[in-house]
Amino acid sequence: MPVATKQLPVRERGACCDLPLVKPAWADETADLMKALADPTRLTMVASLWKTDAPICVCDFTAGLGLSQPTISHHMAKLKEAGLVDSEKRGIWVYYRLHDRLSPSRRKLLGQLIST
Amino acid sequence: MPVATKQLPVRERGACCDLPLVKPAWADETADLMKALADPTRLTMVASLWKTDAPICVCDFTAGLGLSQPTISHHMAKLKEAGLVDSEKRGIWVYYRLHDRLSPSRRKLLGQLIST
Repeated sequence: MPVATKQLPVRERGACCDLPLVKPAWADETADLMKALADPTRLTMVASLWKTDAPICVCDFTAGLGLSQPTISHHMAKLKEAGLVDSEKRGIWVYYRLHDRLSPSRRKLLGQLIST
Repeated sequence: MPVATKQLPVRERGACCDLPLVKPAWADETADLMKALADPTRLTMVASLWKTDAPICVCDFTAGLGLSQPTISHHMAKLKEAGLVDSEKRGIWVYYRLHDRLSPSRRKLLGQLIST
Protein backbone atom coordinates (compact mmCIF):
# COMPACT_ATOMS: atom_id res chain seq x y z
CA MET A 1 0.00 0.00 0.00
CA PRO A 2 1.55 3.34 -1.01
CA VAL A 3 2.19 5.89 1.71
CA ALA A 4 -0.11 8.90 1.41
CA THR A 5 2.01 11.89 0.56
CA LYS A 6 1.01 15.17 2.03
CA GLN A 7 -0.17 17.47 -0.72
CA LEU A 8 1.46 20.89 -0.56
CA PRO A 9 -0.76 23.75 -1.68
CA VAL A 10 0.17 25.14 -5.06
CA ARG A 11 1.48 28.65 -4.57
CA GLU A 12 1.92 30.95 -7.50
CA ARG A 13 5.11 32.91 -7.23
CA GLY A 14 4.08 35.46 -9.82
CA ALA A 15 1.16 37.69 -10.52
CA CYS A 16 -2.33 36.30 -10.73
CA CYS A 17 -4.32 39.16 -12.11
CA ASP A 18 -3.93 42.18 -14.31
CA LEU A 19 -4.35 45.54 -12.65
CA PRO A 20 -7.33 47.60 -13.76
CA LEU A 21 -6.47 50.05 -16.50
CA VAL A 22 -5.26 53.39 -15.16
CA LYS A 23 -4.09 55.85 -17.80
CA PRO A 24 -0.53 57.14 -17.23
CA ALA A 25 -1.48 60.57 -18.61
CA TRP A 26 -4.24 60.85 -15.99
CA ALA A 27 -1.81 59.85 -13.22
CA ASP A 28 0.83 62.37 -14.31
CA GLU A 29 -1.60 65.24 -14.71
CA THR A 30 -3.42 64.52 -11.46
CA ALA A 31 -0.13 64.20 -9.55
CA ASP A 32 0.84 67.67 -10.79
CA LEU A 33 -2.46 69.04 -9.53
CA MET A 34 -2.02 67.32 -6.15
CA LYS A 35 1.53 68.74 -5.87
CA ALA A 36 0.21 72.24 -6.45
CA LEU A 37 -2.32 71.72 -3.67
CA ALA A 38 -0.01 69.86 -1.26
CA ASP A 39 0.69 72.88 0.91
CA PRO A 40 -1.48 74.44 3.64
CA THR A 41 -0.78 78.02 2.49
CA ARG A 42 -1.67 77.29 -1.12
CA LEU A 43 -4.81 75.44 -0.04
CA THR A 44 -5.79 78.41 2.11
CA MET A 45 -5.27 80.73 -0.85
CA VAL A 46 -7.34 78.57 -3.20
CA ALA A 47 -10.09 78.21 -0.60
CA SER A 48 -10.11 82.00 -0.07
CA LEU A 49 -10.46 82.61 -3.80
CA TRP A 50 -13.15 79.93 -4.00
CA LYS A 51 -15.15 81.57 -1.23
CA THR A 52 -15.17 85.08 -2.68
CA ASP A 53 -16.60 86.42 -5.89
CA ALA A 54 -14.24 89.34 -6.27
CA PRO A 55 -10.51 89.00 -7.03
CA ILE A 56 -8.31 89.29 -3.93
CA CYS A 57 -5.45 91.81 -3.67
CA VAL A 58 -2.00 90.48 -2.83
CA CYS A 59 -2.03 93.06 -0.03
CA ASP A 60 -4.97 91.28 1.59
CA PHE A 61 -3.12 87.97 1.42
CA THR A 62 0.03 89.41 3.01
CA ALA A 63 -2.04 90.96 5.78
CA GLY A 64 -4.40 88.02 6.25
CA LEU A 65 -1.80 85.26 6.18
CA GLY A 66 1.08 87.17 7.78
CA LEU A 67 3.42 86.37 4.90
CA SER A 68 5.69 88.51 2.74
CA GLN A 69 4.72 89.56 -0.76
CA PRO A 70 7.46 87.38 -2.37
CA THR A 71 6.18 84.35 -0.46
CA ILE A 72 2.61 84.98 -1.62
CA SER A 73 3.86 85.48 -5.19
CA HIS A 74 5.89 82.28 -5.06
CA HIS A 75 2.91 80.21 -3.95
CA MET A 76 0.61 81.93 -6.44
CA ALA A 77 3.09 81.20 -9.25
CA LYS A 78 2.76 77.48 -8.46
CA LEU A 79 -1.02 77.72 -8.50
CA LYS A 80 -0.91 79.63 -11.80
CA GLU A 81 1.40 77.01 -13.28
CA ALA A 82 -1.16 74.36 -12.35
CA GLY A 83 -3.84 76.40 -14.13
CA LEU A 84 -5.80 77.03 -10.95
CA VAL A 85 -5.28 80.77 -10.52
CA ASP A 86 -5.00 83.84 -12.67
CA SER A 87 -3.84 87.36 -11.83
CA GLU A 88 -4.00 90.89 -13.11
CA LYS A 89 -2.33 94.12 -12.11
CA ARG A 90 -4.49 97.01 -10.97
CA GLY A 91 -2.43 100.08 -10.19
CA ILE A 92 0.35 99.01 -7.90
CA TRP A 93 -1.33 95.83 -6.70
CA VAL A 94 -1.69 92.37 -8.16
CA TYR A 95 -5.13 90.81 -7.82
CA TYR A 96 -5.69 87.06 -7.87
CA ARG A 97 -8.75 85.04 -8.80
CA LEU A 98 -9.55 81.44 -9.63
CA HIS A 99 -8.86 80.73 -13.29
CA ASP A 100 -11.90 81.64 -15.39
CA ARG A 101 -11.58 78.60 -17.57
CA LEU A 102 -11.30 75.98 -14.87
CA SER A 103 -12.70 72.74 -16.32
CA PRO A 104 -16.02 71.56 -14.83
CA SER A 105 -14.33 68.47 -13.35
CA ARG A 106 -11.63 70.55 -11.66
CA ARG A 107 -14.23 72.96 -10.37
CA LYS A 108 -16.18 70.03 -8.93
CA LEU A 109 -13.02 68.59 -7.41
CA LEU A 110 -12.08 71.89 -5.76
CA GLY A 111 -15.62 72.28 -4.43
CA GLN A 112 -15.46 68.80 -2.96
CA LEU A 113 -12.02 69.44 -1.48
CA ILE A 114 -13.00 72.73 0.10
CA SER A 115 -16.28 71.45 1.52
CA THR A 116 -14.55 68.68 3.50
CA MET B 1 -10.83 132.20 -8.25
CA PRO B 2 -8.92 129.24 -6.82
CA VAL B 3 -7.09 126.98 -9.27
CA ALA B 4 -8.75 123.59 -9.49
CA THR B 5 -6.36 121.05 -8.08
CA LYS B 6 -6.25 117.67 -9.70
CA GLN B 7 -7.63 115.13 -7.30
CA LEU B 8 -5.36 112.11 -6.93
CA PRO B 9 -7.13 108.85 -6.27
CA VAL B 10 -6.77 107.67 -2.71
CA ARG B 11 -4.67 104.55 -2.71
CA GLU B 12 -4.55 102.36 0.34
CA ARG B 13 -1.10 101.06 0.98
CA GLY B 14 -2.35 98.31 3.25
CA ALA B 15 -5.00 95.67 3.19
CA CYS B 16 -8.55 96.54 2.33
CA CYS B 17 -10.45 93.41 3.12
CA ASP B 18 -10.34 90.45 5.40
CA LEU B 19 -9.78 87.08 3.78
CA PRO B 20 -12.66 84.60 3.99
CA LEU B 21 -12.32 82.25 6.92
CA VAL B 22 -10.33 79.11 6.07
CA LYS B 23 -9.67 76.79 8.98
CA PRO B 24 -5.97 76.03 9.54
CA ALA B 25 -6.80 72.46 10.64
CA TRP B 26 -8.58 71.86 7.33
CA ALA B 27 -5.60 73.25 5.38
CA ASP B 28 -3.09 71.08 7.27
CA GLU B 29 -5.11 67.90 6.99
CA THR B 30 -5.95 68.43 3.33
CA ALA B 31 -2.32 69.24 2.48
CA ASP B 32 -1.29 65.90 4.02
CA LEU B 33 -3.86 64.11 1.86
CA MET B 34 -2.67 65.96 -1.26
CA LYS B 35 0.95 65.03 -0.45
CA ALA B 36 0.01 61.37 -0.21
CA LEU B 37 -1.63 61.61 -3.63
CA ALA B 38 1.02 63.81 -5.28
CA ASP B 39 2.73 60.96 -7.09
CA PRO B 40 1.71 59.18 -10.31
CA THR B 41 2.53 55.71 -8.92
CA ARG B 42 0.52 56.24 -5.76
CA LEU B 43 -2.39 57.66 -7.75
CA THR B 44 -2.27 54.63 -10.05
CA MET B 45 -2.34 52.33 -7.01
CA VAL B 46 -5.28 54.15 -5.43
CA ALA B 47 -7.17 54.18 -8.74
CA SER B 48 -6.50 50.45 -9.18
CA LEU B 49 -7.85 49.70 -5.71
CA TRP B 50 -10.82 51.98 -6.38
CA LYS B 51 -11.68 50.15 -9.59
CA THR B 52 -11.64 46.62 -8.13
CA ASP B 53 -13.77 45.04 -5.47
CA ALA B 54 -11.25 42.46 -4.34
CA PRO B 55 -7.99 43.30 -2.52
CA ILE B 56 -4.95 43.38 -4.82
CA CYS B 57 -1.82 41.29 -4.18
CA VAL B 58 1.50 43.09 -3.98
CA CYS B 59 2.68 40.59 -6.61
CA ASP B 60 0.13 42.00 -9.06
CA PHE B 61 1.37 45.53 -8.40
CA THR B 62 5.02 44.57 -8.95
CA ALA B 63 4.10 42.80 -12.19
CA GLY B 64 1.61 45.40 -13.41
CA LEU B 65 3.66 48.49 -12.61
CA GLY B 66 7.13 47.03 -13.25
CA LEU B 67 8.35 48.08 -9.81
CA SER B 68 10.17 46.21 -7.04
CA GLN B 69 8.34 44.97 -3.97
CA PRO B 70 10.14 47.47 -1.65
CA THR B 71 9.09 50.32 -3.92
CA ILE B 72 5.46 49.20 -3.86
CA SER B 73 5.63 48.79 -0.06
CA HIS B 74 7.16 52.25 0.33
CA HIS B 75 4.38 53.91 -1.64
CA MET B 76 1.71 51.83 0.09
CA ALA B 77 3.11 52.84 3.49
CA LYS B 78 2.53 56.49 2.57
CA LEU B 79 -1.03 55.74 1.49
CA LYS B 80 -1.65 53.78 4.69
CA GLU B 81 -0.25 56.67 6.75
CA ALA B 82 -2.78 58.95 5.05
CA GLY B 83 -5.55 56.52 6.00
CA LEU B 84 -6.37 55.70 2.39
CA VAL B 85 -5.23 52.10 2.20
CA ASP B 86 -5.19 49.04 4.40
CA SER B 87 -3.36 45.73 4.01
CA GLU B 88 -3.40 42.15 5.24
CA LYS B 89 -1.07 39.22 4.84
CA ARG B 90 -2.39 36.09 3.16
CA GLY B 91 0.23 33.36 3.09
CA ILE B 92 3.40 34.85 1.71
CA TRP B 93 1.72 37.81 0.00
CA VAL B 94 0.47 41.14 1.24
CA TYR B 95 -2.90 42.23 -0.14
CA TYR B 96 -3.96 45.86 -0.34
CA ARG B 97 -7.40 47.43 -0.39
CA LEU B 98 -8.91 50.87 0.09
CA HIS B 99 -9.44 51.58 3.78
CA ASP B 100 -12.82 50.21 4.89
CA ARG B 101 -13.60 53.22 7.01
CA LEU B 102 -12.87 55.92 4.46
CA SER B 103 -15.06 58.91 5.37
CA PRO B 104 -17.91 59.67 2.93
CA SER B 105 -16.29 62.99 1.96
CA ARG B 106 -12.95 61.32 1.19
CA ARG B 107 -14.70 58.61 -0.77
CA LYS B 108 -16.51 61.29 -2.78
CA LEU B 109 -13.26 63.16 -3.33
CA LEU B 110 -11.44 60.05 -4.56
CA GLY B 111 -14.32 59.22 -6.87
CA GLN B 112 -14.22 62.72 -8.30
CA LEU B 113 -10.44 62.58 -8.67
CA ILE B 114 -10.45 59.21 -10.40
CA SER B 115 -13.29 60.06 -12.77
CA THR B 116 -11.43 63.08 -14.21
